Amino acid sequence: MLEELKMAVYEANMLLAGSGLVFGTFGNVSGIDRDCGIVAIKPSGVDYSVLKAEDIVLVDLDGNVVESKLRPSSDTPTHIELYKAFPNIGGVCHTHSTYATSFAQAGRHIKPYGTTHADYFGGVIPCTRRMTPDEIAGEYEKNTGLVIAETFNSLDPERMSAVLVNSHGPFTWGKDANASVMNSVYLEMVANMAMNTEILKALGNDCDPMQPELLRKHFDRKHGKNKYYGQ
Amino acid sequence: MLEELKMAVYEANMLLAGSGLVFGTFGNVSGIDRDCGIVAIKPSGVDYSVLKAEDIVLVDLDGNVVESKLRPSSDTPTHIELYKAFPNIGGVCHTHSTYATSFAQAGRHIKPYGTTHADYFGGVIPCTRRMTPDEIAGEYEKNTGLVIAETFNSLDPERMSAVLVNSHGPFTWGKDANASVMNSVYLEMVANMAMNTEILKALGNDCDPMQPELLRKHFDRKHGKNKYYGQ
Amino acid sequence: MLEELKMAVYEANMLLAGSGLVFGTFGNVSGIDRDCGIVAIKPSGVDYSVLKAEDIVLVDLDGNVVESKLRPSSDTPTHIELYKAFPNIGGVCHTHSTYATSFAQAGRHIKPYGTTHADYFGGVIPCTRRMTPDEIAGEYEKNTGLVIAETFNSLDPERMSAVLVNSHGPFTWGKDANASVMNSVYLEMVANMAMNTEILKALGNDCDPMQPELLRKHFDRKHGKNKYYGQ
Amino acid sequence: MLEELKMAVYEANMLLAGSGLVFGTFGNVSGIDRDCGIVAIKPSGVDYSVLKAEDIVLVDLDGNVVESKLRPSSDTPTHIELYKAFPNIGGVCHTHSTYATSFAQAGRHIKPYGTTHADYFGGVIPCTRRMTPDEIAGEYEKNTGLVIAETFNSLDPERMSAVLVNSHGPFTWGKDANASVMNSVYLEMVANMAMNTEILKALGNDCDPMQPELLRKHFDRKHGKNKYYGQ
Repeated sequence: MLEELKMAVYEANMLLAGSGLVFGTFGNVSGIDRDCGIVAIKPSGVDYSVLKAEDIVLVDLDGNVVESKLRPSSDTPTHIELYKAFPNIGGVCHTHSTYATSFAQAGRHIKPYGTTHADYFGGVIPCTRRMTPDEIAGEYEKNTGLVIAETFNSLDPERMSAVLVNSHGPFTWGKDANASVMNSVYLEMVANMAMNTEILKALGNDCDPMQPELLRKHFDRKHGKNKYYGQ
Repeated sequence: MLEELKMAVYEANMLLAGSGLVFGTFGNVSGIDRDCGIVAIKPSGVDYSVLKAEDIVLVDLDGNVVESKLRPSSDTPTHIELYKAFPNIGGVCHTHSTYATSFAQAGRHIKPYGTTHADYFGGVIPCTRRMTPDEIAGEYEKNTGLVIAETFNSLDPERMSAVLVNSHGPFTWGKDANASVMNSVYLEMVANMAMNTEILKALGNDCDPMQPELLRKHFDRKHGKNKYYGQ
Repeated sequence: MLEELKMAVYEANMLLAGSGLVFGTFGNVSGIDRDCGIVAIKPSGVDYSVLKAEDIVLVDLDGNVVESKLRPSSDTPTHIELYKAFPNIGGVCHTHSTYATSFAQAGRHIKPYGTTHADYFGGVIPCTRRMTPDEIAGEYEKNTGLVIAETFNSLDPERMSAVLVNSHGPFTWGKDANASVMNSVYLEMVANMAMNTEILKALGNDCDPMQPELLRKHFDRKHGKNKYYGQ
Repeated sequence: MLEELKMAVYEANMLLAGSGLVFGTFGNVSGIDRDCGIVAIKPSGVDYSVLKAEDIVLVDLDGNVVESKLRPSSDTPTHIELYKAFPNIGGVCHTHSTYATSFAQAGRHIKPYGTTHADYFGGVIPCTRRMTPDEIAGEYEKNTGLVIAETFNSLDPERMSAVLVNSHGPFTWGKDANASVMNSVYLEMVANMAMNTEILKALGNDCDPMQPELLRKHFDRKHGKNKYYGQ
């Protein structure tokens, strides 16, 4: 059943595998069929290099496995809470990509510093609060989803398609599984440049430049009237 | 018409795609035929992996599409303003490359710190002022070009072939489309090393080195008289 | 003899070579047969590109070469001390991977900042004390192992499968040679993100974001009602 | 003439091209035949992708081209001064590799922080003083070599096979052209880790770690008695 959805989710997982954002068995992508309320998701702990479309696991919105020999991703309850909280999304992606995860570990939002951010994310990319010992001891993965939903209380998930889970890493979403993966890719680029931007602002503008004579010498030996670089 | 220009601009866009500076549909390169005042430019939102030479769009200097099934890059009005302001350039390239964009997002010029910079850029690589709400609300992409031209009021575009648009990213140019792409590549290298240089200057020279005994031990076990590393 | 162990250690060394953590002749992996107390290890100074399974050297726990034309890795005495100190491990891996080595050079532990760390390492990844001139002048490689064992006095090597040797670099271990290599890969990821996390925490949250008008303009030209990006 | 030397220098240049340290026409490698005092060096401004062994240029120690259709690297006079100052070296390599050049641009020595450094470089990797306007206006490339020689007044070029030219970049050397390239590769690794080390030391050890409950939860869901990650 739902072969088309399973194939789409398989392809989105392989897109993630080829994106450079994940390694080994890291990360997972899901997609939902809203008509029948069934989520298709990567199986737990399976390496992308051996993943097949038929391995994709189907679960209902109560987390029951509908069809599979394999166990679904251990993060499945988080995905389910996102589908419940954000009724217009069709796919969810989770990675531990380097820069986005670093912001999550620092417990820091990602502010918008430029148009690369603005092209994909309509404001500050939020970081959740830390989870409590009770939330961790209880239904941990479900509670992760609930904390994300709480963070989006006053946010529009269609203008902000990413969140950083504090001390953990990013989740992204989109109209389908493929779009959710692309948003993970854009998020990582944006996080990388946001970190650099903050470093450059902190450094300020006080460093002495090189000698002006050396600047002119090198530019002119390549581009000046008497240039002597090259053939 | 202008098949040679379209092919050159296609090849320059593919050079950009292979440079590692862009991802997906990011970035765009154009070239101009100065005799007939026609600009050839990448179509909007087309992935490099499917781009063909015949997809390159021709526009005149008023922004009218001269020949194409496809819409030109949404940044076309910026390219046109650059061709108007800098009458000797033949190609323009726009990327969101990581380090150059980080400087743009920080609103910082790139000072010359070494001969790699001096080999390609004849001074401080300027960052524009921030655009005003009116400029953004109006003809935004055209105004982006006008703000660049304003920044170059007292600068020679043949000795400085790059600019950082504040809160956005870099534009570079050259004698043709291909040269404009190469300048984007050089700019990214220079920005990367400028950021490292400023970090190293800020760190200063106070760190304690390793134990001298360990230094000698390791050097000599590989290179000393009684070396015992290797076969 | 022990052809299976030698093949497993060969494959683990090639896994390391393909991991991007080592270059040239850097790094070494070993495995142990606990029944006969024999360690199989990479030969010293042999490039991975020419390494063969039959080159793997067998040594006993006194460091005597049991079978080989080649000399074992110069780090062999360190591996042997780890097998003696940690009776449940089956493989050991040593690299000079960039981020883990940087923490080792800074003489700093790697604190747990997020779940990527927690997925593989059950606490703070410890850095040894500096070695003394006497330890360096004596049986240096053996003493390196003894300093690691000293660091693990009150630590469980099954919950913490990595150590940073001060002013040197990381050693990791696992149930077999392959698992020890995977732990080196995870360690490097964790070290990279820990460094970023500390930088982001130090930077704090004071930077001004971009103009809100520009944020809205770019998001809406791609995603708004009147979007005009793309075909 | 000297076909063997030309082939060795060609191969060393291609090793450099494949090392990831250079781009386009950047960098150059030479080798010397001490018996006849002839240096073989890369031609100026030739891209590695089209370089052939027969393009390698032969010059004598006065800088006269002995045999070639092509002009030698514009940095040839620097190489020649190094061969004169260091009578035991057989090859010289020049790059603008990112981290080593960043230290050069910051005008900073690279201190030894760990055994990766000690494995290849027997002490502090020195940075030259800045060149004077007169030295730049005069025989610039020759003076670059003289400033390096001055820096090595009290240093042994066999224990220290690298230098950073202030505001420029690194030169390395070795027993032959190939060894000089390998030292450029090692230098870049060492510079990268030295910069990280200094950042980590500056950051210190004050950051709060993650919640201990979350640490335990994630480790145990993968490795504990009741683990539920994977199949």
